[in-house]
Amino acid sequence: MAHDFAAQILEGSNRAAARLISWLEDEDERAYECMKEIYPHTGRAFVVGITGSPGAGKSTLTNALAREIRQSGLKVGILAVDPSSPFTGGALLGDRVRMSDLADDPDIYIRSMATRGFLGGMAKAASDVVKVLDALGKDVIVIETVGVGQDEVDIVGVADTTCVVLVPGLGDAIQSMKAGIMEIADVFVINKADRPGADMLCAEVSARIEMDAHLRERGWVAPVNKSVAVEGVGVHELWLSIEAHRKYLFDSGRFYESRREKIAKEALRMIHGELFRVVREQLEQSGRLDAAVEKLMNKKLDPYTLMRDTLTEWLSSSQCKRRHDEDTKG
Amino acid sequence: MAHDFAAQILEGSNRAAARLISWLEDEDERAYECMKEIYPHTGRAFVVGITGSPGAGKSTLTNALAREIRQSGLKVGILAVDPSSPFTGGALLGDRVRMSDLADDPDIYIRSMATRGFLGGMAKAASDVVKVLDALGKDVIVIETVGVGQDEVDIVGVADTTCVVLVPGLGDAIQSMKAGIMEIADVFVINKADRPGADMLCAEVSARIEMDAHLRERGWVAPVNKSVAVEGVGVHELWLSIEAHRKYLFDSGRFYESRREKIAKEALRMIHGELFRVVREQLEQSGRLDAAVEKLMNKKLDPYTLMRDTLTEWLSSSQCKRRHDEDTKG
Repeated sequence: MAHDFAAQILEGSNRAAARLISWLEDEDERAYECMKEIYPHTGRAFVVGITGSPGAGKSTLTNALAREIRQSGLKVGILAVDPSSPFTGGALLGDRVRMSDLADDPDIYIRSMATRGFLGGMAKAASDVVKVLDALGKDVIVIETVGVGQDEVDIVGVADTTCVVLVPGLGDAIQSMKAGIMEIADVFVINKADRPGADMLCAEVSARIEMDAHLRERGWVAPVNKSVAVEGVGVHELWLSIEAHRKYLFDSGRFYESRREKIAKEALRMIHGELFRVVREQLEQSGRLDAAVEKLMNKKLDPYTLMRDTLTEWLSSSQCKRRHDEDTKG
Repeated sequence: MAHDFAAQILEGSNRAAARLISWLEDEDERAYECMKEIYPHTGRAFVVGITGSPGAGKSTLTNALAREIRQSGLKVGILAVDPSSPFTGGALLGDRVRMSDLADDPDIYIRSMATRGFLGGMAKAASDVVKVLDALGKDVIVIETVGVGQDEVDIVGVADTTCVVLVPGLGDAIQSMKAGIMEIADVFVINKADRPGADMLCAEVSARIEMDAHLRERGWVAPVNKSVAVEGVGVHELWLSIEAHRKYLFDSGRFYESRREKIAKEALRMIHGELFRVVREQLEQSGRLDAAVEKLMNKKLDPYTLMRDTLTEWLSSSQCKRRHDEDTKG
């Protein structure tokens, strides 16, 4: 069954892809079987991340970019991640009437996801969905997410090229928030560039890039584009900037290196998540978590001792145990 | 040494507290010893979370609230978390000339933190710092953070009462982002309420609360306050709302229940973090991660198989192994 779905996805069936993504969302065991089968066929698509503060016009820009990419004959997958909604379960963005002119094109696949689950789940989810779209034969996959916290930085960490969208007139507080996001930008876009303050913001960002020795040393200076996404202005130029970055990645050898880093990060993240899931389940089902929490409440135990005792008990590798024991001696 | 510091913190030494927090930041082993000693003396302070989008005036409101709380003779700790800066390391907020009128009051302790580290680190850090401020004898601890992603939701998850700050005129995109945050609000504050649109926003939020059966069922209906924090308007009323929620928590028995949930969550989070740290270190130092990544790059291995093999190898409890094996059979 998983095998059939994998085959259908590799043949380009959007329906099969949608099914697999649902399995991933439900943590259905069939998802793993299917992902294992498609994995050897992934890694081909180029992944673009679009991030920026709420209200920056990321969705409109993403749609316009998808249209632009389609012009050059490439197939496009869009993954819109809304990490602001940890409780609603469903994908908020799905409610929007979005991309109605794109929806009829079978070579565009659009998927929305909202935040669910515990610690760091979105980056893994995004990375899994990217693999599905990749196996489905999309040439370019665009991940759109709100860029504020560590979660979102992890999500765009899946991308080969990260575009940071800024808008004029969102005030100082918002601009200062961008401090952390400057470092992850490969391409800047000042969207809504017909608004007052666009030139000044553009100059500010350029000055910041100029100043920042760390950014210069990377061998790639992030271009600062302007766009009015709602009118399609500047979208072609944005695509050229992304293409230029892609070329830089390949020419410099950074592409291989960067993919390697991403794969290592992802492998660790998956081990992390699964290890914890298993330990948690066992602690909960055996009633040991409840017993420990009772002691913590009564201050008969402290969480630091609990943590270390649990680890000593759970880890099997003697080498690791030794290391851990050494660490705790300090 | 750790013992001396713990004793000094329990006697109310701000300097000793600052030292311990630095140790926590540096993951210095002495921090654990010290935290273990102070843990039995924690759990007494009431923790208030202030969250909202950038530009909502959270810092000003937090300062004004701290001043208000001091009026009633209570000691205040402030923890300002800036999760937007994963790369700068230092605390951005520390750069601001903030709370100059509060800084001379020895019964107010202010600490800023920026995001560092990997997966879910901030919530643990916030929770640790809250314990330090608690042991230091603060009666009320205010955690201020930008509320957008899962990270920030986890950070305010440490609080007993969560205040969500909204402002008029930030546009639809921002307001729709609040969908996820509606559920975690115990108290709403419309700040900058002298701006146009404040009454409408107030009515919208109230209508939303009214409509939402889930929110009504909790037995507490979040009040919607208005404030102009920069002029100190509405701050007293905000404090009364927080006090009312505190009273509700105690009267309904929710306080104990909620603290229990938080402690369980925190224990799991700590085990999670430490487990991963140990496994990661061992995988990296043994060169096995590199070897696995090589195979992943060449598609000779898939990350799902890697994950499960690693787990089977690492987990020592036979009960757990059995469970995990069953799971993977599906």
